[in-house]
Amino acid sequence: MKNLRMIIEYDGTGYYGWQRQISDITIQQVLEETLRRITGEKVTLHGSSRTDAGVHALHQVAHFRTSSGIPERNLLLGLNSLIPRNIVVRDLTEVDEDFHARYSAKSKTYFYRIFNSGMRAALQRNYCWSVFKPLDVERMSEAAFVLKGVHDFTAFCSAQTDVKSPVREVYDARVEKEERFFVRFTIEANGFLRHMVRTIVGTLVDVGKGKFTPMDFRRILESRNRKKAGITAPPQGLFLAGVKYE
Amino acid sequence: MKNLRMIIEYDGTGYYGWQRQISDITIQQVLEETLRRITGEKVTLHGSSRTDAGVHALHQVAHFRTSSGIPERNLLLGLNSLIPRNIVVRDLTEVDEDFHARYSAKSKTYFYRIFNSGMRAALQRNYCWSVFKPLDVERMSEAAFVLKGVHDFTAFCSAQTDVKSPVREVYDARVEKEERFFVRFTIEANGFLRHMVRTIVGTLVDVGKGKFTPMDFRRILESRNRKKAGITAPPQGLFLAGVKYE
Repeated sequence: MKNLRMIIEYDGTGYYGWQRQISDITIQQVLEETLRRITGEKVTLHGSSRTDAGVHALHQVAHFRTSSGIPERNLLLGLNSLIPRNIVVRDLTEVDEDFHARYSAKSKTYFYRIFNSGMRAALQRNYCWSVFKPLDVERMSEAAFVLKGVHDFTAFCSAQTDVKSPVREVYDARVEKEERFFVRFTIEANGFLRHMVRTIVGTLVDVGKGKFTPMDFRRILESRNRKKAGITAPPQGLFLAGVKYE
Repeated sequence: MKNLRMIIEYDGTGYYGWQRQISDITIQQVLEETLRRITGEKVTLHGSSRTDAGVHALHQVAHFRTSSGIPERNLLLGLNSLIPRNIVVRDLTEVDEDFHARYSAKSKTYFYRIFNSGMRAALQRNYCWSVFKPLDVERMSEAAFVLKGVHDFTAFCSAQTDVKSPVREVYDARVEKEERFFVRFTIEANGFLRHMVRTIVGTLVDVGKGKFTPMDFRRILESRNRKKAGITAPPQGLFLAGVKYE
């Protein structure tokens, strides 16, 4: 029995997220079914993060156990030739039997792209959130800085959650202007609650529009009250960008 | 009769290019039909460039004449609410009656994106050319420099052409590394022959792979022989990025 680690890039458009569901198509399902086709085994993939419908990944990590004798290089090429063009397995490597894509992860990094222009985005429509009102990126940066450190993130967490603790440690959180009309929010933390990044982004956009001050943003975080935060930003701007392990 | 100038962004995926065709869907057709629906007039759009099937535009310019009394702002909003999400009109302004999107243009800028990685791109699959062999970007830059100035570009021109002269002036041509695995070629010229940018890119990639030296590249340009150049790079990496007028 080998334990194999995959690094996966995908375009989440049109998928119902990472996690296998009963009726809708997901990334996990496509990969598991293709692995089954190649190895003849029923394979269970464990992803580092259950990205939501429409959310993308530049660097998702997953692992699975197999008794197949197919060399990793052949398995990788076979997989990439059989899966749809909107998913690619960038790497497939045998790892220690203790390695778990989700539980061994020390931190994950996400970024979120906003298109801040008076007109909606056409080319990037599935890869950003179009916000029409001009955003004060300086103030958004100030607010984002508040997120760093250990906090109870209940204020930015969807009610539908089954996690034991809402406390997470944020290692990095920043807002930057990019070329053309793009604004990027990047966050690295030891874990994320359901809809946490998207609700933070929805609230940061309210800061950028002048509805909240950076101080208000801090008070919202400290309130641990979801009702005080902004909307949950739409999924298509969100990218899982990296996962770190020991 | 007013002369109106449009600035248009579009995702060329799934379109048969800019120019109206008998049976296939094009950007020009979608815009003309929507303008007809709004103004009640049969409108003819003149684009600065006839981008090919699968080619994108961040900044295409077009003009049309209309006797409609609808204010530009309302026409712009109406258009954007009726056209598909993969096209957006970013600006609509009345211009001098002499303005012609194609003939008044002083220069156009295109860029071409290559994804240079051992694995194909998934997220950007419709917006780049995946080249697997490692490219020497330094040598590609050297070769690109040769393009600057006034040259006969017959070597990089598709046989199917009806233009009078194959001579064009290139103001800028450069190859740069970008984040992740991207390499970008940018070119500004007073005009372009059919498939010129894509054939230059196909040949520059041969330089990057070591098949040609920058000196070979110069000799290919000077040969005025299409057979000596490389392949025509695929359309989905190409973007019309700007058009300059007096």
